[in-house]
Amino acid sequence: MRYRARVEYDGTGFCGFQVQPGGRTVQGELEVALARLSEGRRIRVVAAGRTDAGVHASGQVISFTYAGRLTPRELERALSAILPVDVGLRGLRRAEPGFHPRFAARYREYRYTVWNGPRSPLRERFALGVRAPLDVAAMTEAASALVGRHDFSAFGAENGQPIRTLYGVRIRRQGHLVTIDVAGDAFLRQMVRSIVAALLRVGRGEIGAADLVTVLESRQRALDGAVAPAHGLCLRRVGYEAPVRWTSMDGEG
Amino acid sequence: MRYRARVEYDGTGFCGFQVQPGGRTVQGELEVALARLSEGRRIRVVAAGRTDAGVHASGQVISFTYAGRLTPRELERALSAILPVDVGLRGLRRAEPGFHPRFAARYREYRYTVWNGPRSPLRERFALGVRAPLDVAAMTEAASALVGRHDFSAFGAENGQPIRTLYGVRIRRQGHLVTIDVAGDAFLRQMVRSIVAALLRVGRGEIGAADLVTVLESRQRALDGAVAPAHGLCLRRVGYEAPVRWTSMDGEG
Repeated sequence: MRYRARVEYDGTGFCGFQVQPGGRTVQGELEVALARLSEGRRIRVVAAGRTDAGVHASGQVISFTYAGRLTPRELERALSAILPVDVGLRGLRRAEPGFHPRFAARYREYRYTVWNGPRSPLRERFALGVRAPLDVAAMTEAASALVGRHDFSAFGAENGQPIRTLYGVRIRRQGHLVTIDVAGDAFLRQMVRSIVAALLRVGRGEIGAADLVTVLESRQRALDGAVAPAHGLCLRRVGYEAPVRWTSMDGEG
Repeated sequence: MRYRARVEYDGTGFCGFQVQPGGRTVQGELEVALARLSEGRRIRVVAAGRTDAGVHASGQVISFTYAGRLTPRELERALSAILPVDVGLRGLRRAEPGFHPRFAARYREYRYTVWNGPRSPLRERFALGVRAPLDVAAMTEAASALVGRHDFSAFGAENGQPIRTLYGVRIRRQGHLVTIDVAGDAFLRQMVRSIVAALLRVGRGEIGAADLVTVLESRQRALDGAVAPAHGLCLRRVGYEAPVRWTSMDGEG
């Protein structure tokens, strides 16, 4: 029987989602927990997004096959009891037989959080500290040039084809807190963090919106391949219905 | 010359504020940084509150004597550049010659944060996860019996006299988030966390407001000496003016 669930994790202590030799990973922790509930049999866990080391998630989606006797509710509780404190799991339920969380996904939403104020160890646990004042209006204008269907080679790495659709970028300030919400059909590796790094340069006045267009059109990894640090990034939502619009990013705060 | 400053820290990686052999402490990190700016001389740092292992602070106050050539502004910047990422320092300025942040303090404000919802690794980094629904109205009623000048032996450990004045307890819910703000002239060791542990029992319906009064009047460490976990607690403010009133806990959210 195929199951799906939403997974939340504090990425700080992980070498990313995907299993890799010698590193602690979210997939690894999930598979260890499932094996303990399946007489040691390995159960492979597939995720919507293979987040990098240090990246957090509040809405990662996974699926796996489980043939044991627990009901979905019991399985969720048992997994929650076994998983380490930095991984949580919710909404476990049956999935359609062929469900694959990555291939079936219609869009992803990420949030990058910036603490644009005096150094704050508590705030900067899950946000990038930026001391220089950021011009959010300039960042918003620059971001709008990236929205749409483009070859994003300048902002990410991928073996396959580099065309992606960016549905929207929303940048908001609340006091010292600046959030950058990004939604798209899919993202190249490091694409969100590359875009954020570029937008932060715009926000500090180092480059302009026009420069961002030039970079995009170059289709070459640009701006020295700069990526914003992982600890400010969180995968918040994976959608399986019709693609998101601007408004869908409202509400959650 | 005597100086004072506000200090913020993520308590997760510390064995508390105060220097102790073999443990990483906030005081230790501050003194190492100051020594590096003073040709290796040890400069003793004194704090308003000697927070326990794992407890955070956004408004700790420290003082120390520094005889070097840096201006307060330069000293703050230099310290900020040297300190580890989990300690920050702000508002460094001259203090009156005899200023002692603990003895001069008129009140302290602590916040205990509870995530009263489904397990959430991201939320529960700085909050205690409580699954059972909490009755905030019952907790508020019970807390009101503790406000005032009392012998708090039942809620804390101390070698000296156990009389303290609790100025107010404010409990608020915003969705799954429950915050317990506590203000008092001073607190016994573990007093805030003991009070929170008792209030959580009230919130879960295990004991009533009247039981809390009985416990207080017993003057014996009660409720099995239960203390709420450290990672939900944050020292937010130390006041040197007239004591706080209820209203002073508004605003910061």
